[in-house]
Amino acid sequence: MKLIKYPSKEQWSELLKRPTLNTENLFDTVRTIINKVRFEGDKAVLEYEATFDKAVLSTLPVTSEEIKEAEGKISNELKAAISLAKQNIETFHASQRFVGKKVETMNGVTCWQKAVGIEKVGLYIPGGTAPLFSTVLMLAVPAKIAGCKEIVLCTPPDKNGNIHPAILFAAQLAGVSKIFKAGGVQAIAAMAYGTESIPKVYKIFGPGNQYVTAAKQLVSLRDVAIDMPAGPSEVEVLADASASPVFVAADLLSQAEHGVDSQAMLITTSEKLQAEVVLEVERQLAKLPRKEIAEKSLENSKLILVRDLEEALELTNAYAPEHLIIETENYLEVAERITNAGSVFLGSLTPESAGDYASGTNHTLPTNGYAKAYSGVSLDSFIRKITFQEIISDGIQAIGPAIEEMAANEHLDAHKNAVTVRLDSLK
Amino acid sequence: MKLIKYPSKEQWSELLKRPTLNTENLFDTVRTIINKVRFEGDKAVLEYEATFDKAVLSTLPVTSEEIKEAEGKISNELKAAISLAKQNIETFHASQRFVGKKVETMNGVTCWQKAVGIEKVGLYIPGGTAPLFSTVLMLAVPAKIAGCKEIVLCTPPDKNGNIHPAILFAAQLAGVSKIFKAGGVQAIAAMAYGTESIPKVYKIFGPGNQYVTAAKQLVSLRDVAIDMPAGPSEVEVLADASASPVFVAADLLSQAEHGVDSQAMLITTSEKLQAEVVLEVERQLAKLPRKEIAEKSLENSKLILVRDLEEALELTNAYAPEHLIIETENYLEVAERITNAGSVFLGSLTPESAGDYASGTNHTLPTNGYAKAYSGVSLDSFIRKITFQEIISDGIQAIGPAIEEMAANEHLDAHKNAVTVRLDSLK
Repeated sequence: MKLIKYPSKEQWSELLKRPTLNTENLFDTVRTIINKVRFEGDKAVLEYEATFDKAVLSTLPVTSEEIKEAEGKISNELKAAISLAKQNIETFHASQRFVGKKVETMNGVTCWQKAVGIEKVGLYIPGGTAPLFSTVLMLAVPAKIAGCKEIVLCTPPDKNGNIHPAILFAAQLAGVSKIFKAGGVQAIAAMAYGTESIPKVYKIFGPGNQYVTAAKQLVSLRDVAIDMPAGPSEVEVLADASASPVFVAADLLSQAEHGVDSQAMLITTSEKLQAEVVLEVERQLAKLPRKEIAEKSLENSKLILVRDLEEALELTNAYAPEHLIIETENYLEVAERITNAGSVFLGSLTPESAGDYASGTNHTLPTNGYAKAYSGVSLDSFIRKITFQEIISDGIQAIGPAIEEMAANEHLDAHKNAVTVRLDSLK
Repeated sequence: MKLIKYPSKEQWSELLKRPTLNTENLFDTVRTIINKVRFEGDKAVLEYEATFDKAVLSTLPVTSEEIKEAEGKISNELKAAISLAKQNIETFHASQRFVGKKVETMNGVTCWQKAVGIEKVGLYIPGGTAPLFSTVLMLAVPAKIAGCKEIVLCTPPDKNGNIHPAILFAAQLAGVSKIFKAGGVQAIAAMAYGTESIPKVYKIFGPGNQYVTAAKQLVSLRDVAIDMPAGPSEVEVLADASASPVFVAADLLSQAEHGVDSQAMLITTSEKLQAEVVLEVERQLAKLPRKEIAEKSLENSKLILVRDLEEALELTNAYAPEHLIIETENYLEVAERITNAGSVFLGSLTPESAGDYASGTNHTLPTNGYAKAYSGVSLDSFIRKITFQEIISDGIQAIGPAIEEMAANEHLDAHKNAVTVRLDSLK
C-alpha cells in the first residue's frame, strides 16, 4: 500500500491512473474465433470447448434433468441465501419500472415514451475458481422484470462437462429460459450470431476476461448491443476520523481479493485513520485464504490523506469509482455531492459486499472511470423506450408552418412537402 | 420501387435486409488521424481542416462576435420556427426528468437511484449541403435539461472558415457552451482526448459519414462513450386501405431524399393502396429539387403487400424500423403491438417530418434494426443513474448472514469478512 499525504493537484491525474486495458491487440485472434463460430455454429463451439475449457461435450444445452439435480447438490442455507438476495434484487429493480406519460407539447401534438423489454438477451457468466451465481441473479432478475422473452445464459463447464449447481439453481430461480455450456469468445460469438442450438440475442451482458471483453467489443461494432465496457473492479472508501479502521480495512481487502489488478483506494481527512488502516489491513490479511491475490493487488493500493472534506469530494468525483463507500459523519450530506460513481454505500454498516450480493442494488457497474458517462446495469439496461406521437388537425396547423420553414432551410423539400400535403387537405 | 405481393416467411430476411455498413476497414486510416490529433492537439486539427474541409483557420473556437452576427443573418421566420421547435423539444424532454424513490428492500436496507447529468458532452454536427440546425436542437436541448455542465459542439466550417448562421443561432439558443470549427475524424478525436482549445468530453453524440462513425467506434472502445451505432436512415409506413396514397407517397419521398442509401418501405394490407402509391410517388418525385437522390434511393424501396394486419405487425417488428408511420384505422390499437421501432408516428396527420423537426420527440434514433436493442436519444442519454444504499443495524442483521453464505460459496472470504466485522460490532 502506498501512503500519500496531501498530494498537490498536479499529482492527481497520476494518482488516479488505472492500469490501461488494451484489447485491440487481441482483435485478430478473437475475430478468428468469432468467424469460425459464426460460420460453423455448434461444431465450432464444441471444438473450442474441448480446446479452451478441456471439456468434451456432445451437446451444448443444459438439460432440465441437470437443472433438477443441481437443486439437490447445494445446501439449504445457500438456497435460502440466494432466494433472499433474489427477492431484494427483484424488489429494487421492480421499483424501477418506467411508465411513460402522454405530454401535449402543443395543442393537438401528443408525445410519449413506452418501455418495452428487449426481446432476446444473452447473459455471460465466466468460469474460473468461483461460481458467480450472484451475477446470474444480477442479470437475470431485471431481464425477467423487463419482460425479455428469451433469456439465454452461457457459462463454461468444468473439465467433466458440468456447470456448478449454484449457477444452475440461481438461473432457474431467476427465470433464465435456456442455459448453454459455452464459455469465452465462442460463447459471445454464439449469442451474437446464433448457432443451431444457441439463439441469436440482441444484447449481451456480463463480465469476463480480456478475450471476452474484446469479443463483446468486436460484435458490438455492428451486430449486437453490449452492457458496457469492462475493466478491473475497484473501490474507494471516503472516510473521516469517525470511521472504523477495522471496517475500512475489511472493505479494502474485499476489493483486493478480486484479482491482482483490482484497485482499492482510501481517501481520508484523518491521518490517524490512514495509519490505523495500514495496521488493520495487515492483521486481517494474514487470515485470508486468497491472501496472495490480495497482497499483490494491495501493492497498487493508495491511502490518500487530504486537507479537508471538500478536497476529498473533488478527488472522488475526479476518480469516478465503481464502488464508493462513504464512512463519514453526515454521510447523507456528503452523498448529495457525489456526481461520478457507480454505486455508493453509505455509513458504517453498509459494506460493498451488501450490494455485491443481497441488498437489492445491481453489482454490474462502470469501472475504469466509465462512471463519468455510464450507469450501472439496472432495469433500463433491459428495455428500450420507444417514442410515439399523435398529431391531430389543430396540432399540424400549429406546428406545420414551422416544420415547412425548417425543412426548406435544411434543403429537404420532400420533408416540407409531407407537411404541405396534409395542411392542404385541411383547407 | 419494388412491388412485392404476399411474400412467404422464407423471403422475409431477404426482404428486410439493410445495406451492410462495414467500418472496420476504415479503422487504420481513422486511427492515424485520431493519434495525430491526440498527440499534436490543435495543430493537427488545423492541418486536417485545411486538408479535408479546405478551410484555412488560425483558431478553432467560434467567437461570441460570430454568434452575435449569425442572428442577423437568418430570417425572422426561421428564427421563430427554430424557437417553436426548441420549446416543444424542451417540453417533451423536461417531462422525462427522473426522480428516484427510496425503496426499503428489507427492514433497515434502503436503496435508491439518483440521476446526475454527464458533466461534459460533445455534440457533432456534420457539414455538407444542408445545415443541420435541427440536430443541434435535438442534442443540445436535452443536454441542457439534464444538467450537463459543459456542452461542446464541433461542426466543419465552409471553405471560407464560416459556420452556417442557423447552426450558430440554434446552438446559442439551446445553451451550447463552446462551439468549434472542426469536422470529421479530427473533431471526434479532439472531443475524445481534448486539445489546447477543445475540451475532452465524456460522451459524444451526433450523426456523420462512415469516417465519423468509424472514429466514434474506435474512441468508444476505451476512452469515451457514444450515443449509439449509426447507419443509413429509414422509414416504414404501415398502412391499410384507409390511408391516403398522397400522404404515404410524401412520407416515403421525405425519407428517400436523405441519401441514396436511405430506406423507404411500405407494408400494406391494401393492393389498391400499393398501386396508387407507385403512381403518386412518381407524380410527387417530378417536382422535387433533390429528385436524383430520391430516385436512386427509391430503387431499393419496397412496397410489400401482406395478407392481414397480423402479418403486417409481425413483419414490422422483425424489421425494427427507425421511423414507423402507422396510417390505419384504429392506429392506437395497432401501436400497442409495436415492440421494435425507434419512433412511431400515428394517424394520417403525423408525418415523420413532425418528429424530425418540431413536435418535441427526438430525431436521433436507432437505424439498421438497432431498435431491437437500443432506444433513441432522450434525456436518459445525457444522465447517469447512480445507485445509493444505506443499511442500518436491523438491515445488516437481516441480510448479513445471507451475504456471508453467498460470499463463502463464491470463495470470497474478504467479502464475507466485511460483513462479519460489522455483525460482530453489533453483538
